[in-house]
Amino acid sequence: MSFAPAGLITLTTDFGVDDPFVGIVKARILSGLPEARLVDLTHGIAPGRADLAGFWLGLAWREFPAGTVHLAVVDPGVGTDRGVLLAEAGGHLLLGPDNGLLPEALRGCDGVLWRAMEPGLPDQLGLLPLSRTFHGRDLFAPLAALLAAGRLGPAEFGAETAPTDPRPLPRPQEGVNLVTGRVILADRFGNLITNIGDQSLGACRQPVLEIGDRRLPLVGTYGEAPHDALLALVNAFGLVEIARNGGSAASTLGCGEGSPVRLRDGFET
Amino acid sequence: MSFAPAGLITLTTDFGVDDPFVGIVKARILSGLPEARLVDLTHGIAPGRADLAGFWLGLAWREFPAGTVHLAVVDPGVGTDRGVLLAEAGGHLLLGPDNGLLPEALRGCDGVLWRAMEPGLPDQLGLLPLSRTFHGRDLFAPLAALLAAGRLGPAEFGAETAPTDPRPLPRPQEGVNLVTGRVILADRFGNLITNIGDQSLGACRQPVLEIGDRRLPLVGTYGEAPHDALLALVNAFGLVEIARNGGSAASTLGCGEGSPVRLRDGFET
Amino acid sequence: MSFAPAGLITLTTDFGVDDPFVGIVKARILSGLPEARLVDLTHGIAPGRADLAGFWLGLAWREFPAGTVHLAVVDPGVGTDRGVLLAEAGGHLLLGPDNGLLPEALRGCDGVLWRAMEPGLPDQLGLLPLSRTFHGRDLFAPLAALLAAGRLGPAEFGAETAPTDPRPLPRPQEGVNLVTGRVILADRFGNLITNIGDQSLGACRQPVLEIGDRRLPLVGTYGEAPHDALLALVNAFGLVEIARNGGSAASTLGCGEGSPVRLRDGFET
Repeated sequence: MSFAPAGLITLTTDFGVDDPFVGIVKARILSGLPEARLVDLTHGIAPGRADLAGFWLGLAWREFPAGTVHLAVVDPGVGTDRGVLLAEAGGHLLLGPDNGLLPEALRGCDGVLWRAMEPGLPDQLGLLPLSRTFHGRDLFAPLAALLAAGRLGPAEFGAETAPTDPRPLPRPQEGVNLVTGRVILADRFGNLITNIGDQSLGACRQPVLEIGDRRLPLVGTYGEAPHDALLALVNAFGLVEIARNGGSAASTLGCGEGSPVRLRDGFET
Repeated sequence: MSFAPAGLITLTTDFGVDDPFVGIVKARILSGLPEARLVDLTHGIAPGRADLAGFWLGLAWREFPAGTVHLAVVDPGVGTDRGVLLAEAGGHLLLGPDNGLLPEALRGCDGVLWRAMEPGLPDQLGLLPLSRTFHGRDLFAPLAALLAAGRLGPAEFGAETAPTDPRPLPRPQEGVNLVTGRVILADRFGNLITNIGDQSLGACRQPVLEIGDRRLPLVGTYGEAPHDALLALVNAFGLVEIARNGGSAASTLGCGEGSPVRLRDGFET
Repeated sequence: MSFAPAGLITLTTDFGVDDPFVGIVKARILSGLPEARLVDLTHGIAPGRADLAGFWLGLAWREFPAGTVHLAVVDPGVGTDRGVLLAEAGGHLLLGPDNGLLPEALRGCDGVLWRAMEPGLPDQLGLLPLSRTFHGRDLFAPLAALLAAGRLGPAEFGAETAPTDPRPLPRPQEGVNLVTGRVILADRFGNLITNIGDQSLGACRQPVLEIGDRRLPLVGTYGEAPHDALLALVNAFGLVEIARNGGSAASTLGCGEGSPVRLRDGFET
């Protein structure tokens, strides 16, 4: 399914919402494509954490209509010689710095077409001079507008490439009746989202999630556990998650990013 | 005044803005109604506090044009058998889980028409399967899009009902020359918004607001008090509010949600 | 270049995003101009800091297309007799309270046409009664909608004026081979943005930035310094900035708003 622009652009950054950086990026997009519709995916990525931006973007991009351009700018290497990537997948475009963000977002996706920006493209498009500290404004915003407008085709963006991910998020290890994983992050509710996917549950008759010295049953939803009780479940993204009904599992357990978890079959112990 | 869709949808959630949950809800709305105009009311509701979401929504919804759909998702009971409510009021629609949020928002409103979602509706609309932890994405977003598009009429949503509010916010008590109330919440400025409405002031000749051991005069606006002084006033929503000119009343007083307040007539003591 | 409305309105406030105040302002704008396109510049201004709102707005407004209305509401004097200003500059309109915000935003701009709101205008436009605590909703939102719609021309807004800035941000002092300045604010990344502009660097052969007892070289971008090292650079707004590659300069140095900085020519010591 090739890309047919729908005029929709999502934004994922580590800019926060207290400074005007996101607004300035939108200014440049709207200068290029006044009728663009802009949707904030999140600007709350921890500074510089391209991997976590990729994680969230990977769970979200397919929910948008085909023809959407997803702009992701977590870019600690701004102004250095790091490259710029464009990915075409399922009729969507994903644009961002070449630092592992987009490979993380698209891990496991079939049929992704990757392109590396032709170094001469900013000059050719009249975007020079670029600042060396805010390519979200000077480079990515106008590129996103041109792509979303259909005035810059993926093929004109650059040659095909095969990007690498310099710092991939940890993947779970599958053992006999045991999957060992890690917490990827805690969300606003203090829910601990792990890297263990629902496919790991297939063989379990009575799955139990271990974190620290706790053994938590897998339930269907938060409200199935007693109030204030810890629980585990498969969340709406197909990932095993540790939660507390009516509270924060992160605070209760003192756990967060990187905490080890183990999924066992309860019958087996 | 019956509902005539204006293509405008507001969002009120406890999802925060650091995770991509709001963006994902918008993705599903835009997939159903690409031309929808979306306005964030707030995503900063304390997790699970349907009552406070209802409080803010109640102060805001009438400010939008008639024909607006207000989607409110503070939903600790997601995935359980809690129902889904639709309210029609003043040419607006309000949609959310049946947990007291919407009754709080519409308390005291005349002419509200309440409907309970027909349990078979998600199946009929092709929305199955639903996840059990993110109905904002799987159920509420597509329903809001259909309602805002005029493709799902209120009458098709479900039968009329009379909802209850399981956990209403406290109401003030009117006594002789005395109204006792509570702080509902502190806003970003540290202003303490109480549940005492301006109608309680009618009989007072010289109203005084008491909180802790402080007695505060009622003034017209913040700048009428000396810099850094505590004050009380009737705010723009018709509610008595305690503030500090140039600072935070909440920090100064160490008060917040639930703190008792008393409105007296100063002439009377 | 005179103002030709583009239907675009930006918003800069100290309302935060956890309360519904921004959403309510948008409600009133959309009630007046349903097709308005709204862009949040920032709502994270420290409460009451009109000067910092002006600082950010000054760095951002030119990035938007001509024909944009920039609404800025940091308004601790709401409900008092403070005036309302409209500035016309470069085909844009800027609207806000007369408290120094807009003069800070437009400092150094040529060709600004300032107007003071005619006191009778709210009555004439049917906006009375105004609340005394939320002019963002009652006054500024409808004015912005009318201006952005082209239904209220700048000349009808009020007579020309020459506003003053009661509390200007500090300006750098230029000495011989030395410029002394201050940190204006720390951004989300902990980067310390100073008031020293790139024009101060013209005469330096080997510029060095001093803060506390640190002497920092000026580099081109963050990634040019070793990981975790402190550095200085000219940022994308043309201002000298102190940063830490991969971390927060503000936390590392314990510095923030008002911290003194000195720009020296390293050859000179």
